[in-house]
Amino acid sequence: MMRGAVMYGPGDVRVEERSDPRIVEATDAIIRLPATCICGSDLWPYRGLDTADWPMVMGHEYVGIVEDVGSEVTTVEPGQFVIGSFWASDNTCEICQAGYQSSCIHRELMGATGTQAELARVPLADGTLVATAEVPPDELVPSFLAASDVLGTGWFGAVAAEAGPGKTVAVVGDGAVGLLGMLAAKQLGAERIIAMSRHEPRQRLAREYGATDIVEERGEDGVAMIKELTNGLGAHSVIEAVGTQESMMQAIRSTRPGGHVGFVGVAHGVDLPGEALFFSHVHLHGGPAPVRRFLPELIDLIWNRQIDPGKVFDLQLPLDEAAEGYQAMDRRQAIKVLLHP
Amino acid sequence: MMRGAVMYGPGDVRVEERSDPRIVEATDAIIRLPATCICGSDLWPYRGLDTADWPMVMGHEYVGIVEDVGSEVTTVEPGQFVIGSFWASDNTCEICQAGYQSSCIHRELMGATGTQAELARVPLADGTLVATAEVPPDELVPSFLAASDVLGTGWFGAVAAEAGPGKTVAVVGDGAVGLLGMLAAKQLGAERIIAMSRHEPRQRLAREYGATDIVEERGEDGVAMIKELTNGLGAHSVIEAVGTQESMMQAIRSTRPGGHVGFVGVAHGVDLPGEALFFSHVHLHGGPAPVRRFLPELIDLIWNRQIDPGKVFDLQLPLDEAAEGYQAMDRRQAIKVLLHP
Repeated sequence: MMRGAVMYGPGDVRVEERSDPRIVEATDAIIRLPATCICGSDLWPYRGLDTADWPMVMGHEYVGIVEDVGSEVTTVEPGQFVIGSFWASDNTCEICQAGYQSSCIHRELMGATGTQAELARVPLADGTLVATAEVPPDELVPSFLAASDVLGTGWFGAVAAEAGPGKTVAVVGDGAVGLLGMLAAKQLGAERIIAMSRHEPRQRLAREYGATDIVEERGEDGVAMIKELTNGLGAHSVIEAVGTQESMMQAIRSTRPGGHVGFVGVAHGVDLPGEALFFSHVHLHGGPAPVRRFLPELIDLIWNRQIDPGKVFDLQLPLDEAAEGYQAMDRRQAIKVLLHP
Repeated sequence: MMRGAVMYGPGDVRVEERSDPRIVEATDAIIRLPATCICGSDLWPYRGLDTADWPMVMGHEYVGIVEDVGSEVTTVEPGQFVIGSFWASDNTCEICQAGYQSSCIHRELMGATGTQAELARVPLADGTLVATAEVPPDELVPSFLAASDVLGTGWFGAVAAEAGPGKTVAVVGDGAVGLLGMLAAKQLGAERIIAMSRHEPRQRLAREYGATDIVEERGEDGVAMIKELTNGLGAHSVIEAVGTQESMMQAIRSTRPGGHVGFVGVAHGVDLPGEALFFSHVHLHGGPAPVRRFLPELIDLIWNRQIDPGKVFDLQLPLDEAAEGYQAMDRRQAIKVLLHP
């Protein structure tokens, strides 16, 4: 038996004894997690804004030491430290090869066994997991854990928004994904990074990650401020990291004609008016981040200490206190919570 | 006085005597049109689906011989044959330089004087008009006229959809823009071009312009056929050339994850569900075509007889019979109507 987090309904997270996950398919791996975490998207069901089949096991972000592998697994072996993404993927189909592993034709959503737990089962281990050269020192574990989702998602947002040299990049959303979108934009060479944030501790981390300007206004006023900062034209690139109607429209309207919106906030109740989109002239791209595409590069950057995405974890708790972690994130008292199994 | 078309209300187009347009700004040109035409978008008010201030002068597509220029015009002169687009643009602002002349910060919509007429005023002549090396022979005039809007728009659809070598391109809409989107996809090197069309004469022109497959089904069934033709994945590139809810969703759902939708049908009553868009993983780009970006290349292709976009004009009428032309397009008896002033 192992300990793992289960949500019994909105606001009701419990850590309890659960059966150990085991190899089901010959392509599976079982990993033991040195750390796990709570995702902003876990707050949708927590707040009752997603329908769910209760009780649901929680967690889809993970790093870990391989404990066991199925008979067909060839690229990872017990004892290795591995990182994967929330969508397991074969990494060989035509869609994976085009860089969209999160739409792999054989994809499986992690979380069947839940990763807010001591152990987890990873399907399609060869396609999904990337091993580090050695087991990393403890201080790098939070950053590798961030790479599993929030860093990879922010990175995809920046790539989808075509952040790069000479570009002004605005970021809607100051959660972990938005903050790491700023880090990504900086790494990709953006000239100017505008954080849309009204929370002082997050503004601080935003600046640390590369933000050159802070805009506290939202909606119409936020759009007007972005225009004011960009010669009336709007940003070249806008990363949308929230997923609401307001944030999507704020992102689209902050982008200049011909510019790019990268949207990675999981859309909830969003309806985009076709006429406004048509005349906006923006490029729109996003969706569930194909984190696997970026993992080798992100692992290198972390290993070489060129980036420190683990700083988004501003609260660490024992796994048994997961409920307190959810509450802290729900109340925006923490950006992101790391749990120690 | 000159003859020009005026719409007095849905279904009511009249050709009447109107004042000659004249130079208003020093950057204007006046052109005399050897031919003009009716646009698919003119059918929106004709069908009562656009609100309008009646009466409205009609026409925004044009080629012509320069009759007069304002004092600040330096790049075109009387006697030259010129082609422009429905948005006049300065072609120098940052947005124009990025290739989005139809969102030029100084743009003016053509049609203040209406181009379904003997003469038209073109604002921002230096930025808007491209002159041919010589006055072209009559048989090339329809093709140059097509370049002014439908060819440029189909071309933008293909570029926005990233049609190119190795790509399977599907086209939703078999009007002039859709058909010329196929021609553009072919010119851009697409491997396979799927025309979604159920009208035999249009299918014929589609094949002539490069379509390799025809899909007659629409909606769900049309999407299923595209998937069947693409190994279950969907097309790499889809050009949307209608502008309705059904056509937009058909385009998005026919595109594989990571693929590109180029939407150039003027959106009417379209609402895109954010969740579906998020999980589709497509790239979405479109809007009013920046025809000016493509004009030099399109003019060369036409002049050298490498493309024959003028074939979309399957009905030619005297300008005075404009009402018959609108009726023929409304009833889908003609793909596109050329009018001789």
